[in-house]
Amino acid sequence: MLGRQQLTAVAEARTILLAAIAAIEPGSETVTLVDALDRVSSWDILAPEDLPNCDRSTMDGYAVIAADTFGASQELPAYLEVTGEVLMGAPGTGSISRGNCYKIPTGGLLPDKSDGVVMLEHTVPIDDKLIEVVKGIGTGTNVIRKGDDIRTGALAIAQGQLLRPQELGLLAGLGITDVEVYRRPCVGIVATGDEIVEPDGPAPAGRIRNINSTVLGALLRRQGSAVIDYGIVADNEGSFFSTVEQAVAENDIVLFSGGSSVGMRDLGEQAIARLAGPGILVHGVALKPGKPALIGLSGNTPVFGLPGHPVSAMVCFDFFVKPALARLSGRSGSPDELLPTVRARLKRNINSAAGRLDVIRVQLTIEDDQVVAQPVLGRSGAISTLSRAHGFFLIAEDSQGCNIDESVEVYIYQ
Amino acid sequence: MLGRQQLTAVAEARTILLAAIAAIEPGSETVTLVDALDRVSSWDILAPEDLPNCDRSTMDGYAVIAADTFGASQELPAYLEVTGEVLMGAPGTGSISRGNCYKIPTGGLLPDKSDGVVMLEHTVPIDDKLIEVVKGIGTGTNVIRKGDDIRTGALAIAQGQLLRPQELGLLAGLGITDVEVYRRPCVGIVATGDEIVEPDGPAPAGRIRNINSTVLGALLRRQGSAVIDYGIVADNEGSFFSTVEQAVAENDIVLFSGGSSVGMRDLGEQAIARLAGPGILVHGVALKPGKPALIGLSGNTPVFGLPGHPVSAMVCFDFFVKPALARLSGRSGSPDELLPTVRARLKRNINSAAGRLDVIRVQLTIEDDQVVAQPVLGRSGAISTLSRAHGFFLIAEDSQGCNIDESVEVYIYQ
Repeated sequence: MLGRQQLTAVAEARTILLAAIAAIEPGSETVTLVDALDRVSSWDILAPEDLPNCDRSTMDGYAVIAADTFGASQELPAYLEVTGEVLMGAPGTGSISRGNCYKIPTGGLLPDKSDGVVMLEHTVPIDDKLIEVVKGIGTGTNVIRKGDDIRTGALAIAQGQLLRPQELGLLAGLGITDVEVYRRPCVGIVATGDEIVEPDGPAPAGRIRNINSTVLGALLRRQGSAVIDYGIVADNEGSFFSTVEQAVAENDIVLFSGGSSVGMRDLGEQAIARLAGPGILVHGVALKPGKPALIGLSGNTPVFGLPGHPVSAMVCFDFFVKPALARLSGRSGSPDELLPTVRARLKRNINSAAGRLDVIRVQLTIEDDQVVAQPVLGRSGAISTLSRAHGFFLIAEDSQGCNIDESVEVYIYQ
Repeated sequence: MLGRQQLTAVAEARTILLAAIAAIEPGSETVTLVDALDRVSSWDILAPEDLPNCDRSTMDGYAVIAADTFGASQELPAYLEVTGEVLMGAPGTGSISRGNCYKIPTGGLLPDKSDGVVMLEHTVPIDDKLIEVVKGIGTGTNVIRKGDDIRTGALAIAQGQLLRPQELGLLAGLGITDVEVYRRPCVGIVATGDEIVEPDGPAPAGRIRNINSTVLGALLRRQGSAVIDYGIVADNEGSFFSTVEQAVAENDIVLFSGGSSVGMRDLGEQAIARLAGPGILVHGVALKPGKPALIGLSGNTPVFGLPGHPVSAMVCFDFFVKPALARLSGRSGSPDELLPTVRARLKRNINSAAGRLDVIRVQLTIEDDQVVAQPVLGRSGAISTLSRAHGFFLIAEDSQGCNIDESVEVYIYQ
């Protein structure tokens, strides 16, 4: 029985899980730039050309030979003859020589021999053909050189890198419009428990509606997964085992969530044990809420038994499912590296039992220009506590709690 | 000419913009729970019933009358007769009296008269019909009462609230499976500039590929917008004015981005001026990068002229387009309230001109357990600087810069 088993520490459980799935290689597919948003590159992508592909002005002004302007000032301007004008997008035709300049717009291609641009604001037109330069420039001023952004052959996108809007922009700039990315993991969700009924029907006394499938499905979709919802399955061997088996065959990850009664937990362990191995990796973690979590692996498919309480299920999702999902999405690096946080002043004392990691949900408010964290009280069975919470902070295994006015690091729910 | 016009401070520009669109009421539509993810509720939703709908146990154990266990301990246990068992999901049938108890699973419906649950771990079975209670409980222990999570008529979701996974869970728990949400804004993107060519073709010297439409489209999709891409339009009055006019007719917001040359800027101002009023709200902001931004309004449609440089365009997106988008998506509250940030130690001195807000892109690394921010150098025309940056920090208008080892607050790109 779980209550009398040794619980696994959160960090250790995660290490066991990630080690077990480290060798799994997700498949890949080719998609267009629009469809590549928030996908993960499955290749190192090298720049096929220089960006920009020529020396360009970064200002409206005059392309000059910088040496012609050295020492120029309001009192002692340099005089330059305007011998041409660069037109936007036109191929470079002109060339300048000492004492001459070209009018040039921002983004314009520098004429041959010119090595800097004087801003319009630092010139005074004398007539159509002559300008005063009232501030000297150095070589390279207001110019972005060929390849300054990225050079041919340089690494533009690394394998395992998330393709955010800015990475898609870099690819567009390099003329790469088809990208090979890892396939999105497909995740199956099975709900079980004799007391669970569908959200769209009546809930007689003693029955509760299926909250977990909605919450887990939404969390998964936000991470870019495809989701198959297997609905509510009776918690007897016949229905439950065969549905879990089917879900494992049809998905890259399977989540089941059920009552957290002892009988239900036993059933979950048995279901994982009956699948192809290696089987159960972790049964029960030193985490509150989230203690009854089961973690197993069947072939290449992680199978998670999540607590029935929605709050506990969501905490286990963040700690265990999300890193596995990141790994099977091809993401490199630690999944919670630099997770967005805010430091906040704690509004009351919180006690914690030593030996387990406590997840304390909080509401954030601003008081006197300071972020203040007010713990959201409520039992782990209460979904409304999650809806009221802006995020959570952690009380480590070796701590007995936090004191009022202590500064805590709050992870933000998004 | 813009360089000689008065620039508007960033905060003021945003205030002007948000005041101008404050009265616009976005339309709404009804969607299912799955489709409601990350949408915004257009109504106050009240709980139609109590959650949970009965008193339930939060532990495996025995439902008791708490008074029967007062003072019970290892040395002096209380003895209770087991007169029944609660089955999961079964309607409540039993009732207990003094000296009796029911076996109950987590989630089980409390039998009549019982007012607390003794954890299994705090009992010792004597025989099939008798248990020892070795730790007394108070009234309400290990019980979640009818309506403890949320009570009939209480506000479950407020108008203007974002529907995250946990809000969808609350709605599922309350049996609400259709939700009225604000329509997603539709945003038109127009690229212009004689030097701009499509990403999927060749880019001769002097031409650069259209990066902005890809980046802006991806940023918009991430915010839940529908996007219409009008492609690259020649920057002459005939093509440009008519495309902007069409985009305003067909969308809730229009972005155009072009060369930031003076000619292009003038064309942008003229395009907005020729639309139905009120017209230009802001021309040019005290922001680096991002100075040439134009903000206008035609009827109920904000029109943004964004700088041609992708880095500047993205900064202007974050500061101006995103808040307008949040407003037209029906989001209540300040759009950048509690934006995820990390505090980091600055790796070098950064100078800044007084009188403008500087946006400094940084790479974050961990050194000696501290987050360290290394400014990403590179011109605002360079898209690769954005791809290398984890986020940015701000140098205020009244500051002349930041010093090495100073602690700065970094906004995280996601």
